[in-house]
Amino acid sequence: MAEFKYEIVEEIAVISESSRGWSKELNLISWNERDPKYDLREWSPEHEKMGKGITLSAEELKTLRDALNKLEL
Amino acid sequence: MAEFKYEIVEEIAVISESSRGWSKELNLISWNERDPKYDLREWSPEHEKMGKGITLSAEELKTLRDALNKLEL
Repeated sequence: MAEFKYEIVEEIAVISESSRGWSKELNLISWNERDPKYDLREWSPEHEKMGKGITLSAEELKTLRDALNKLEL
Repeated sequence: MAEFKYEIVEEIAVISESSRGWSKELNLISWNERDPKYDLREWSPEHEKMGKGITLSAEELKTLRDALNKLEL
């Protein structure tokens, strides 16, 4: 597997935490030293392991925010 | 690989569409005939292939929505 570098530039919000200590988080992450992107993902305690997730641009987050604000939750 | 069933119960919002036709979408999806969950994920045209994403409960979506509303985007 190819190596890749990442840096969590900003921890924006912890969305939830599971009983095994994994958390769903919204962060700003730089991948391979590129410009940082928003990232919604599961992480193990202390950010040791990265789980499944999705990377989003600011434009995509805005669209998501507007969709969530229209939703009955 | 084990098989699994899913059904897109409701298409809530298309967040973006890439030049190759894949889209990031917020949907309500039932996995293996269980209660549907919110799901933010990439899909190929016509939902033929499923890309990376994350499943969220209503409670998690609320927390995400509140975090996004506090964010300067």
